[in-house]
Parts: sequence; structure tokens; C-alpha cells
Amino acid sequence: MSLEDTAKKIKAMEIRGAALIARSAVEALCEYGEGLGELALTDFKEAMENAAELLLATRPTAVSLPNAVNIVMKGVRNADTIAEARAGIRPSSEKFIRNSKDALQKIAEIGARHIPEDATLMTHCNSQAAIACIIEAHRQGKVREVFATEVRPRNQGLLTIRALNDAGIKTNFIVDSGARFFMKKIDLLVIGTDAVTVNGAVVNKIGTSQIALAAREARTPVMVAAETFKFAPRTITGDLIEIEERDTAEVLDRPIAAQLENVTVRNPAFDVTPADFIDLIVTEKGAIPPEMAYIIIRDHLGWNLEDIR
Amino acid sequence: MSLEDTAKKIKAMEIRGAALIARSAVEALCEYGEGLGELALTDFKEAMENAAELLLATRPTAVSLPNAVNIVMKGVRNADTIAEARAGIRPSSEKFIRNSKDALQKIAEIGARHIPEDATLMTHCNSQAAIACIIEAHRQGKVREVFATEVRPRNQGLLTIRALNDAGIKTNFIVDSGARFFMKKIDLLVIGTDAVTVNGAVVNKIGTSQIALAAREARTPVMVAAETFKFAPRTITGDLIEIEERDTAEVLDRPIAAQLENVTVRNPAFDVTPADFIDLIVTEKGAIPPEMAYIIIRDHLGWNLEDIR
Amino acid sequence: MSLEDTAKKIKAMEIRGAALIARSAVEALCEYGEGLGELALTDFKEAMENAAELLLATRPTAVSLPNAVNIVMKGVRNADTIAEARAGIRPSSEKFIRNSKDALQKIAEIGARHIPEDATLMTHCNSQAAIACIIEAHRQGKVREVFATEVRPRNQGLLTIRALNDAGIKTNFIVDSGARFFMKKIDLLVIGTDAVTVNGAVVNKIGTSQIALAAREARTPVMVAAETFKFAPRTITGDLIEIEERDTAEVLDRPIAAQLENVTVRNPAFDVTPADFIDLIVTEKGAIPPEMAYIIIRDHLGWNLEDIR
Amino acid sequence: MSLEDTAKKIKAMEIRGAALIARSAVEALCEYGEGLGELALTDFKEAMENAAELLLATRPTAVSLPNAVNIVMKGVRNADTIAEARAGIRPSSEKFIRNSKDALQKIAEIGARHIPEDATLMTHCNSQAAIACIIEAHRQGKVREVFATEVRPRNQGLLTIRALNDAGIKTNFIVDSGARFFMKKIDLLVIGTDAVTVNGAVVNKIGTSQIALAAREARTPVMVAAETFKFAPRTITGDLIEIEERDTAEVLDRPIAAQLENVTVRNPAFDVTPADFIDLIVTEKGAIPPEMAYIIIRDHLGWNLEDIR
Amino acid sequence: MSLEDTAKKIKAMEIRGAALIARSAVEALCEYGEGLGELALTDFKEAMENAAELLLATRPTAVSLPNAVNIVMKGVRNADTIAEARAGIRPSSEKFIRNSKDALQKIAEIGARHIPEDATLMTHCNSQAAIACIIEAHRQGKVREVFATEVRPRNQGLLTIRALNDAGIKTNFIVDSGARFFMKKIDLLVIGTDAVTVNGAVVNKIGTSQIALAAREARTPVMVAAETFKFAPRTITGDLIEIEERDTAEVLDRPIAAQLENVTVRNPAFDVTPADFIDLIVTEKGAIPPEMAYIIIRDHLGWNLEDIR
Amino acid sequence: MSLEDTAKKIKAMEIRGAALIARSAVEALCEYGEGLGELALTDFKEAMENAAELLLATRPTAVSLPNAVNIVMKGVRNADTIAEARAGIRPSSEKFIRNSKDALQKIAEIGARHIPEDATLMTHCNSQAAIACIIEAHRQGKVREVFATEVRPRNQGLLTIRALNDAGIKTNFIVDSGARFFMKKIDLLVIGTDAVTVNGAVVNKIGTSQIALAAREARTPVMVAAETFKFAPRTITGDLIEIEERDTAEVLDRPIAAQLENVTVRNPAFDVTPADFIDLIVTEKGAIPPEMAYIIIRDHLGWNLEDIR
Repeated sequence: MSLEDTAKKIKAMEIRGAALIARSAVEALCEYGEGLGELALTDFKEAMENAAELLLATRPTAVSLPNAVNIVMKGVRNADTIAEARAGIRPSSEKFIRNSKDALQKIAEIGARHIPEDATLMTHCNSQAAIACIIEAHRQGKVREVFATEVRPRNQGLLTIRALNDAGIKTNFIVDSGARFFMKKIDLLVIGTDAVTVNGAVVNKIGTSQIALAAREARTPVMVAAETFKFAPRTITGDLIEIEERDTAEVLDRPIAAQLENVTVRNPAFDVTPADFIDLIVTEKGAIPPEMAYIIIRDHLGWNLEDIR
Repeated sequence: MSLEDTAKKIKAMEIRGAALIARSAVEALCEYGEGLGELALTDFKEAMENAAELLLATRPTAVSLPNAVNIVMKGVRNADTIAEARAGIRPSSEKFIRNSKDALQKIAEIGARHIPEDATLMTHCNSQAAIACIIEAHRQGKVREVFATEVRPRNQGLLTIRALNDAGIKTNFIVDSGARFFMKKIDLLVIGTDAVTVNGAVVNKIGTSQIALAAREARTPVMVAAETFKFAPRTITGDLIEIEERDTAEVLDRPIAAQLENVTVRNPAFDVTPADFIDLIVTEKGAIPPEMAYIIIRDHLGWNLEDIR
Repeated sequence: MSLEDTAKKIKAMEIRGAALIARSAVEALCEYGEGLGELALTDFKEAMENAAELLLATRPTAVSLPNAVNIVMKGVRNADTIAEARAGIRPSSEKFIRNSKDALQKIAEIGARHIPEDATLMTHCNSQAAIACIIEAHRQGKVREVFATEVRPRNQGLLTIRALNDAGIKTNFIVDSGARFFMKKIDLLVIGTDAVTVNGAVVNKIGTSQIALAAREARTPVMVAAETFKFAPRTITGDLIEIEERDTAEVLDRPIAAQLENVTVRNPAFDVTPADFIDLIVTEKGAIPPEMAYIIIRDHLGWNLEDIR
Repeated sequence: MSLEDTAKKIKAMEIRGAALIARSAVEALCEYGEGLGELALTDFKEAMENAAELLLATRPTAVSLPNAVNIVMKGVRNADTIAEARAGIRPSSEKFIRNSKDALQKIAEIGARHIPEDATLMTHCNSQAAIACIIEAHRQGKVREVFATEVRPRNQGLLTIRALNDAGIKTNFIVDSGARFFMKKIDLLVIGTDAVTVNGAVVNKIGTSQIALAAREARTPVMVAAETFKFAPRTITGDLIEIEERDTAEVLDRPIAAQLENVTVRNPAFDVTPADFIDLIVTEKGAIPPEMAYIIIRDHLGWNLEDIR
Repeated sequence: MSLEDTAKKIKAMEIRGAALIARSAVEALCEYGEGLGELALTDFKEAMENAAELLLATRPTAVSLPNAVNIVMKGVRNADTIAEARAGIRPSSEKFIRNSKDALQKIAEIGARHIPEDATLMTHCNSQAAIACIIEAHRQGKVREVFATEVRPRNQGLLTIRALNDAGIKTNFIVDSGARFFMKKIDLLVIGTDAVTVNGAVVNKIGTSQIALAAREARTPVMVAAETFKFAPRTITGDLIEIEERDTAEVLDRPIAAQLENVTVRNPAFDVTPADFIDLIVTEKGAIPPEMAYIIIRDHLGWNLEDIR
Repeated sequence: MSLEDTAKKIKAMEIRGAALIARSAVEALCEYGEGLGELALTDFKEAMENAAELLLATRPTAVSLPNAVNIVMKGVRNADTIAEARAGIRPSSEKFIRNSKDALQKIAEIGARHIPEDATLMTHCNSQAAIACIIEAHRQGKVREVFATEVRPRNQGLLTIRALNDAGIKTNFIVDSGARFFMKKIDLLVIGTDAVTVNGAVVNKIGTSQIALAAREARTPVMVAAETFKFAPRTITGDLIEIEERDTAEVLDRPIAAQLENVTVRNPAFDVTPADFIDLIVTEKGAIPPEMAYIIIRDHLGWNLEDIR
């Protein structure tokens, strides 16, 4: 897929889920670089930087995107010759993609161990990492049933219940507002995340913080499944996670909206769940309490404070 | 409208909102009674009881229904002659309908006084009483803006934003999951209710308890607008409010559901918000704290414990 | 049983449970009064007052005791002739005992309605009213299983599990410290009480407030079963409920205690569970929220402020 | 003591307390290894592995056991010659035992500094580390009095009050259910632990989480005294701490239980106190907040993720 | 004192404390009425209404003022002759003043019973009713010591510590910000109030809600001492309690303020403590939980909903 | 300024604020050392140690003081010759002072990024670091207005509002008791600190914990601005932060106090805000959650456990 097509599909949420976004971006950047004709080093670098910029602009809150882009660009930026710059692209891309895919499997294994016997689970949105944990636990015979939400406005819950159904897992489908109604019987809330901040807060699909609040109220533990590349280094030096507002037509059809002159549609795509509501974050490096996010960012992602603009 | 049509429409939620349900039921029962041909007293009573049963069966959790039905049936049951039985129907029906309509206006007046200056409000579902309070406060120049939710699965929020839009009120339309995201800036949550229990809990549209929980977390007060006929006498002697589950097709299209053999749709129409989350219930008799529900049931609705089966 | 024997057995907790205490006291007082020989009115009154004092002194925190004693003594105190004084004793005693027994049955009926289908329950101590609710709910096929605590130091839990076992109810027996461990799966905590104060707090067996705290933490509702004669009128005018400390040998054998010169055994028999932790108090007059305790004291027990010393 | 005897005594809780268990296991393993006759390296290793297995099987939740066993077995496993394998056993065992004993003294010193002047303390169960802190603080003149619980079902509280009594500390002995009753006057809750998980939760004697909840409710800080060998590395990769259920006869005599066919005794030995309820964990390496457990496991216990099966 | 002088002194807070305000207003109104010359009934009534208006305008949040004024004006308004109008003024005024003074004594008696033995108390602001409870408890030998706050900006705490000092009570004087620091050792927070709303919230000196929040956090009970005339009937029908902002010079000297062009002084005189933070309100009619405020307003103050404009 | 003068001014709070104290101490110590005449190495070291002691004694809770003193003394203590001892003083002093000043600027930059657009802020006391964050955010156009407290008893709030006023920031000045009244509209509480303990608690001006409690109640985040030299290493090994009580005349004029024989003034200068109430600590090394305090102490301040007495 061309760079432009990838960028467009990320923007349109046709490519969805932080891991997929990251891998697609890496792949597109890699192919774009390989496809570039004969160029001087500086021109090559500039073309690549522009491509990187194009990708980074598609989804400002998708924290995996800059991490992924940096993986490829690091080699380009440090290259002293055009040959060196070209040569590094493919290996670093493939390594990232392989690691990212392995991460999912590793998270599934670790996460499944935290799911108790005969568990009734709840999930919100359509996280591959969260679903992988649930399916692995099901394979081990530990899952009684799952409650999955609809996930307005884009109804990603449909993808989730299809995945769970195809894995043979007894699944209940509920509207987002039904979470507290069923919470008392839930043994564990299993969710994914788009970003983990330095103080362990989790940026995820709108509604997550509301459901996690209901979980805490009912003493239901909350487990977040997150590849380490979703940990957000920039929040160390103070950038607020800016919450993207998406197209209002996702929530209200334009013809209806047009009739209602006093009505504004607000469509924030994410919200922030505070670390207090979260019991454990399962990464491919192990399961950590949310307060340890800083350690992951520093020790596992290898960011120095100086690296960060 | 015929008795059968009314019953059907209540069941199908074409007639929606507890006040409307109650008034329609009273009207239908009244017209049915007047339309009955020449009958002996016992036959007349039996026909009326059957009609009452038909209506009562349409919506088990709509507490206003039995209260409304009883208003008409009390006279029928106590009547000693067929003339007396027939004569009482119209006046009691009209009185109930008039009081019920006045209640709305009175609640609007009292409720508006509890809305502070320059208020940012939130509402959930489509409560006539809650909307009346907001519109009256708007008329007094006190409303800055309102956040209204979509209200899945039947999207009653569309009715709410139309009503607010037509009243000229600046309104924001959000998905149900967005309530906590915007809660920090909300000055007051204004909601209606389907039933108030003896210990001040509020049975309302699914999602209400979740939003009220988020309100309490943010120190946002919660005001419930409720006609006194929504106070549920039977909960004194211990009947649990049974939460109705509605047609699953409201949540998931049947063709899709049919493909997903491991998936069950759960569609509870209501949830229960505990009294702890509620600051004030505005009735047409004044504004009371939720803990005073028992007083309303005993002193204003005039139920004795002996009246209740 | 003689007055002295009754007093002794109440003190020694051989007569246990507030209802039994009250009925035994009434019975003993009644028989004592009837057994008194030929006396002048003032001497008769004095003898009865002394008898009343003797009984009242046995258990200072058993609120039913003064209520019960007053039932008998009211007639004696108001009597103008010795005949009248004697005549009133038997009927008032029998009425109290009958009402007290009916209360249990009425509470069982009302309480059982508040127990949901397929319920997992927990109870603490050995309350006849609480057990009656559970057994009635079991009769209706609604009880899945019950968790009952040991109830140190006197192990009244043994009486509870015998009663539940004999009723054919699946019962789990746990140490008092195990309550929070199992709380997440409990649907309802059902307890009795020794006294209800004017602000809805509940004085019950030591440990109750600790278990109710764990219930609230886990969003498990708490239902208290209490005859109205357990509502404590004196707390209106400010008497603190004084918590009785019982014989230390209940906790630690005297020979061991004697060796430990720096060790004091503290053995409070009761603790106070605040109204905030309680969802409903089931009385024979209906189920009320704890905040309505004042209404019961005033309207159902008929205490005026002037009646209270 | 022979390996078998040690294993038996650990299982029977005659050897009690995580430090004692660990040291006894190390000692037994050491003596067993030294007592083995002339063997080939592989046979020696196999014999040692079997011995290790035997010990590990006695108490699944005693986290110090695998840590201790590994200390001895590491050398055996890495040995290239039978001489080397034999030679390492005694030194590693003695070092562990010495360190473990020093740990207690170091914890006492550090813990005592966290006990305020004129402190009223509470403790639950019989933790040597917790008692050491209290006795050291008493030596410094800072302890007013201690409340110690009975600790059903095995009454380890008796050991605690003996130890406190012999140290000359004014001690109050209460039933486990009395903790909340006295909590308001407690300045610090001082407890030990059987295991600390990676997210700072504490696995300790049943009832601990209930008492810690009451402490948090009353703003009473909670200090946990724990040698670093009690930090549980396996929870990093997701193993749930499985809570052992012990012999039901500890709770209810078998003849009585036999009569009650509907009654099951549940006897979980431990419960899990969440990190939120804990203010500080005092280790021999310093006092840390519970959220730093991961750092201890990684930096002080030297576990790599790869070391863990 | 003349009507104008009284009004001026109330406005200037030279007359302070709700009871004193009420009694002064009644006295001034009474003297004013008696001092009016020969007038027609309508002119007399008009003069009295104007006088009432003048008083009512001085302190909008002093709820006792309208209650007190109404006591005198009721007779005037209902009078059919000038003689009747004049005659009723003195007796109703004297009765109110006597009752108001007795109220204090009655509250002291009831409140003192709720103060436990050897109590460490805290108070905020300078409430005669709260101080009366404390002094009576001291007289009974139950008060160990009191913590009293400074009460910025007008330092009414000085009046409080003088009163406590003169009663021989060991008193600690702290800045308002020190309340949480000392809260852990406080057995009871004893405060007065300017108004009690229909849902049991308490309007009192700025800072009260902050200190009550700290009390709740530490499980310290909160007792409010309030004459029934401080219960606010108008809040039933929805009037918000408007919080008066007082002269900024109380907080910052004008010359300094004048130099700081970007600085605004905000000086709200009161804040609202929610019913959740309050355990008991002691009135002269008995001690009630805050949720019973409605009952006091209806049954003891005798307000009908129709009485309220 | 001479050593003695510096010490006196620190004690008298004429030199205020932890950074200023630290820099003044370093400067004074440096000048003192340079001013010492011809001395033997041991005499020089002794003189310097005495000077260090003098400074350390002025403010026991000012954690920056020992950190600062150690910076200078380290070189002195390790010096082998008098020349070496003298030579190190100036460079280490200047480096500390420069770093300390840069820290402020760095904190301002990082902190400002955490302040949202159009923010309404609150601050308590007079923290240079907190004010620097606010002014930088104001420079970026993000500050709507600030609420600043009076800060009894020494009214440091006056310094704060002067600084904010001079920076052109719209500022509201309120009494300390007013914090909760205005909290609902506050977007962020920005405070400084005197010390950060190993478990992330913050020791700051009396009243801070009370205001932070009100912030948490209203879901208002709390940001602490703290140079790393304020992190307190000694709390690792268990020293309690002792709260200094200052001169009672700050609270109550001596002549008045003298009249009140039963009144004691209590004047704690600081209180402790638990880590639970704090969302982020902004240091010059980045923004961390409070639970990471230990990492700062170990990794950034370079303390080993062995370094600490």
C-alpha cells in the first residue's frame, strides 16, 4: 500500500488499533523509502522526513505512531551515506513488526495467567491485545463468559464480538451504558489502550474511564493489555495528551444536525483513565502496576530525557 | 385511541415517558369504560379489571402505570351500583390528567430555582420533567449550555436535543460514553425517572447510574425531576423493582445476531441509581432529599401499608 | 421461670437474641406480678418497679428490654386500684409476645421479597429475624447459598449454621476474618440488630460494622432485619448507646490471662454500624431506609419527646 | 531435623512464619545434601531437586520457600563437578540464614523510626518482623500500648501477646471482629506479610485486608514489615497468588461438621490487601511505598524476567 | 435600640450569631411597633411591613431573620383592628425571645449527652449553641480539651477561645488551615450553623465544609447545634441559598488592594456542608439526623407549602 | 552576608522558600570557608563542620538545607590537603546555585506544559517553583485566572498575589478557608513543597493537605513543583518528618494570649499531603508520579543507602 493510502486509511480509521497503525506506518515508510529513486543523501533524508511527518499527522493521539516512525527514522537520521540510509530501513522495519507481533503473543500468555478460573470478564472497544488475553485464557478453560460493549459511535464492539464468537467464547453484547448494570458480577475488566502516560494513566476509547470507575466502585479489578511501544515518553516532560475530536457525522447524521442550529456535536475519541482505577498493565516485558510506567519508558523503551524534543 | 392500541403502543415504546404512559392509560381506560354497553355491575367490574390487567402487563417497570390505573379503578371497585361505577370514571380520569399536566409545570418552576446562574447542565434520556426544568431555567436566563446524551439503544437523546434546540438552548450532543469526559465542567446533572423507591433510589433509563456515579466523583450535584405518582409504594413491603429486558433487535440487527451463535444480546432498559448519588428530587409538592421518599409515599400518595398486597 | 432465673439467664447470655430477651422479660415480669401475694397498691407498684429494675440492669445495651418492660409497667403505673394493676399485666404481656412473634413472620415475608433470585447471602451472628428472612426466601427457591460467620468470642455462628442446615440451605461456615475474602461474590448481607438509633445507625454484635464496611466497599447491599421494638427512643435526646464489655474469659481463659501481666482483654459485645453502610431496614411495618428510623420511633412506637426521661 | 520432618512441620504449621519456614527449609536442604552418600553428579543433582520439590510442595503460598530453596539450588544446578556441587551448599545456606536473621534486626531499626511518639499500635497475626519493630520502638520509649487480635482459626494471636507481654509492653487482646471498634484510636497498624506481589499488594493471614480497610477508613496508616525475600517474582509474569485453603477442622470440629450435611467449612489461610491500603513496606534495604515492589524484585532480588519460568 | 440602629449593627456584624440577630430583630420590631403613634390599621400595617423589610434586607443568608420577623408580623397581618394589631406584638416577641433562649439551654443539655467521656473536641467559628454544648459537657467532666480555629477573616475564634477559657476549659487555638493536621485525634467536631436546608445541608461560616470534609476523612463524627428556627423553609420550593460576599477590606487592606490592579478579593461569608458530612443535628426538640430536616420544617416549624411565597 | 546573619534570617523566616534557603546556606558556607584564616586541615574541617551544624539547626524540616550543606561539605570532608579543601568550596557552591536557579526555569517550562488551555488555577503559600510554572503558562496565554490563599499565620499569600499581579495575571485573593468553596471551578491546584518523602508524600505549608483533600473530592488534579533537592533521602530509612511548631505569637498576640490561661496556641508550620492526593510532581528532571520519588532519590540524587546515617 502506498504511503498516501496508508496515511488516508489511518486517518479514516480503516486502519484501526494502535499495533496495526504502527505496523502499517512502518511498512509504508519502509516501502516508500525503498521505492525512492536515485537521490543525494540530504534529499533522501528530506523525503523520508516528509513522509514521516505525513504519517505522524494522521492521528495525533496514537502514541505508537511516533514510536514506530522513530524506529525507522533513527537509522536514516544517523546514516552517513545514502547506501547506509537505504540499507537500514528494511531490517529495522521487519524487526519492529516481528517484535510487535510477538508482543501480542507474549501479552496473551502473561495476561491469561492473571485471569482467574471460571472468570466472567468485561471488555470495552476492540483491543487486539485484550482479546488475545481473553482467547488464551479461554484456551486454558478459564473463561465462563464475556461482556462486550457496543462502543459508540463507531461500534467497534461488533468486531470484538465477532472475534470472541469465532473463538467459541460465550459472549454478551451490551450497550455502553449497561456496564455498571452488569459490573457486580464481573471478575475482571480487560481492556487495551492507545497510550500509557508517565504517571500510569491510560488513554483509551471514549467511555473507558467511565467503565473503569464503575469497576472500582464494585471492587472489580482492571487489567490493561499494552505493548510497551504504547508508553508515551513525551508526557515525562509535560505534554498533555491532547484528546482528538473526530468527525461529528459519526455521532449524528449531517442532515439531522443541519436542522438543529443550537446543537453542536462533541465527539472526543478517547478519555483518560487515572492510574488509581487500574490494577495491572500487562506488557510483553511482564505485568506491572501503573505507577511503574516511568520505568518502562526509561529502561525498556530506552528514552533519555535528552532524546525528547 | 382504543384500549388495545394504547396497550400496544406503550409496549412498543411508541408511547414513551412515564407521564405520557400514565395519562394514555387513564384515557384509554376511561374511554373503554364509557364505551362498554349495557352490563350488570359485576360484569362491568370484571370487564374493567380485565382492561386494567391488559394495561398493567405492558410495561412492568413503569411505576406510574399501576398508580394511574388505580386512580380510575378505585371508584369502579368501590361502586355499589352500575351507575355509580360509570359516573366516577370520567371525573377521576380528568382530574388525574389535569394534575399530571400541572405537575410538570410546578416541577419546572421549582426545579428551575435549583439551577444556578450561568449553569452548564447535563441530562440523560428524554424526560419531560427534566426538560421542563431546563427550559424554565433557560427562560429565566440561567442556562449557559446543556450536554445531552445519545441514549442507546433507542436514541431518545434525539428527542431531547430537538426539544432543547427548539427552545433555543445551546446544546451539545454526545455519546453515552462521553459523560465522564465532560463531567468536570458540569454544574448540575438533571434527570427524570421512571420510578422512585421507598429508600430514595431512582429507576431510570439504562446508563443513568453510571453517569450519576461520574457526577458524584466530580462533586457535581444530581437533581431528579419526578412527579409524585412515580414513587413506588410496593417497594415498602419488599418487592424488588424488576428490570425489564427489551427486544434484542434494538441493540443488534437480527441478521447479524443470527450469525453469531455464541453471542447473546442483553438489553436491560433501566438501571437503579442509589439514593447516595442523588442530591434532590423535585416533585410537584416541593423538592425533597431522596431519603424522604417514604414520606411522599405515605403522606402525599396516601398509601397505607394495608392497601398494598 | 422465676424473675431471678430469667434475669440471670439474660445476663449469662443463655437467653440470647433481643426478641427472646424481650419476651422472656415480659413473661417473667408477668408471672412475678401474678405471683405476688396480697399487697397494697403502692407496695405492689414498688415491688413491680423493683422487678423491672432488676431486669433492666441485666443487659444495658439490649434496647428491646426497656421497651418490653415499659409495655407491662405502663398499665401498672397508671393503675388506680390494685385490681386494675393486676388485671392489666396478663393481657398486655400476651399482646406483646404475640405481636413480637408475628413481627418475625411479617419480617420474614417482607425481607424475603428483597432477596433477589439465585442469591448468595452472608450473615453475621445469630439473628432470628435475619434467619427467618433467609429461610422464607429459601422456601421460595431464591437462595443459592449462605455464608455464615463463626462470631467470636461466643461462637453464636454455630446456632446459625444449625438453623440453616436444618432448613436444608446450602451453607458455608467461615471465620469472622474471612468476610472480605468472600464478599465480592455476595449479593446481599442480611443481618439482625440489637438496636437502631434515631439516626439509623445499627448496634449489633461486634464485627458487624467491619463486615458492613467490606460490603459497602464491594457494592454489596446490606439489609437489616429488625422488629420495631428495637428502635431506641432515648437516642433522640442524646443518650449515647453505651457499648457493654463482657467477661474477658469469653476471649481468653483465665489461667492464661493470669500469666500475662501486661495483657488486658477487651471484650466489647457490640459495635455501631453507621446508617451510610445500610441500604434497608426491614421491620414488621415495612421496609424503610435507615434515615427513616425517627419516623418509626415517633409514629410507630408512639414515643413523644416528653415520654422520655 | 530431617528433610521429611521439616517438610511435615511446615505443612502442619508447627514451623510457622515465613522467615522460619525459609530458614528451616534451607537448613534441611543443606543437611540433606551433606548427608547424601557417594553419588554421581547427575544423581546428586536429581536427589537435591527431589528434595527441593518436596519442600516446595508443603506450602504453595509461602513465597519465601521458593526463594530460599533457589538460593541453595542455584549452586547445585550450576555446578560442573560433584565436589563443586557439595562445596557450595553450606556457605550459601549459612549466608542466607545470617542475612535473614540480620534482616529482622535491620527491619526492627528502620520500622521503629516510623513509629511515632506515644503510639497506640495494632497488629494482626504473629509476624516476627512486625513484633520486632514494635519491641524496638518500645525500647526507645515510644509505645503507649498495642492492640493484638486473636487470629482465628489457629489463634496465633496468643503467641503475639506472649511476645509483647514478655517484652513488657502494655497489650490489649481482642477478637478479630473488634478491630474496627478500636481503630479510631490507633496511630499505626503494624503487620507482617507472607508475600508482596509485584504491584505492591500484600498476601497475609486471613483478616488482614479487612482490618487494613478499617484502618484506611479511619485515616490510620498501615506499615508492613517484610524481608525482601518475601517479594514474589513470579507475579511479574502473571501467576495469580493462589490462596491455600487449610484443614476445615481448624474452624469446626469434625464431629459437629459431620452432623451438618448442608454445611461446608471454608478455610482460606490468607487474603490479599491491595497496595492502596498500605502506606509503607519496611524491608531490610529501607522503607518503600508498595508501588516500588517491582524495584525490589528487580534490583535487590536480582531476578531477570528470563530467570522466571 | 432603634430599628435603624439594629439594622445597621446586624449589617455591620456588630450583632453576630443567628440567635442574637433574630432576637435583636424581634426586639427592635416590637419596640418600633409600640413606638408608632396614632395610626389607621392599614397605615400601621404598612409601617410595620416597611420595618420588617428593612430588617430582612440586612443579611440575606441569615435564615433566622425571616423566621423571627414572621413571628411578629403574623399577628400584625392577621389583625382586624388596630388595637388587636398593637396588642399582639409584645407577647409574641417575648415568647419568641424566651423560647429562643430556652432553646440554647435545651440544646446544651441534649448536645452534651452526645459528647463522649474524655472527649477531644474541635469547633469552628463562634456558635453560642455549639459552645453551650461544650460548656455543659465540661460541667459534666467529659471534656479533655478543645481545638478552636481562628476563623478568618473576622477572627471570631477569639470570641470562642475567650468563652471557653472563661469556662475553665483547656483550649487549643489554631489557624483555620491546621484543622486536618489535628483531626486524627479529634473525637467530635461540634459546630453551629446559620441555616439548615431541606435536604439537611448546613450553611455556616466559610471553612466549615472544608473542616467537615477532613472530619469525615478521619472518621470523626460531626455534630451541628441548631435551633429549629434556623431550618430554612424556602429551600423546599427550590430557592438556592445565596452565599453573601462581604466587604473585601475584611480580607485585604484597601491601600494594599489598590496597588494590585489584577487582584480581586473574594470574600464569601459562608459555605455549604452537605448532609453526608453531618452525623447529627441537635435542636431544642431533640437530636435528628440531617435527612430529617424536612420533618422539622413541616412538623415543628409548622410551615405549609402554601405559606411560602 | 555573614554565616550568623544567614542562619538568623533563615530561622526568622526572613529568608523563606526552600530554594532560597538552600542557596543562601551554600553561599554563606562558601564565604565562611573562604574567609577562614590560615588553619591546619583538621581545624579547617572542624570549623566548617561547626558552620554546617549551625545552618542545619535553623530549620529542621527544610529538607533542602542538609542537601545543600552536603554539596559543599562533601568536598571538604574528602579533601586530603588544606589546599584541596579550600579549592573545592567555590566551584561546588556555584554549581549548586546555578543548577538550583536553572531548575526553577526548567520546572517552569515542564510545569507549564501540564497546565491546560484557559485554565483556572489555585495555589497555596508562596512557592517560587509553583509561581514560575503559572507565569510561564500565562506567557503562553493559557491562564484564565488564579485563586491564591492568604496563608495564615504569616500571610505569605501577599507575596504570591504581588508576584502574580506584577506578571499581569488575573488573580483572586481568598482566605484559606475559602478553598473548598471555589474548588469546583478549579482546573488544577499548583503548589510547591518543602520536602518530598520516599513514598511520595509532600510536606508543605500548613493547610496544603486540607486543600489537596478538597481538590481530590472535586476531581481537581494536583501538581506539585519541586526541585529534586527537596526529595528527602532520610525517610528511606525511616525517619519521620518532624513537623516544626513555630512561635505562637504568629497566631495570637502575646498580650492577648497572656490573659487566657487555659488557652494554648498550636502553630505547626507544615502538614503532610499523602501521595494519593497528588497527580504529578514536576522536577527539573521531568514530571513524575509521586510514587516515583524513590527513583529520584536513588538515581538523580545519587544517595546510596549506606550514605545515610
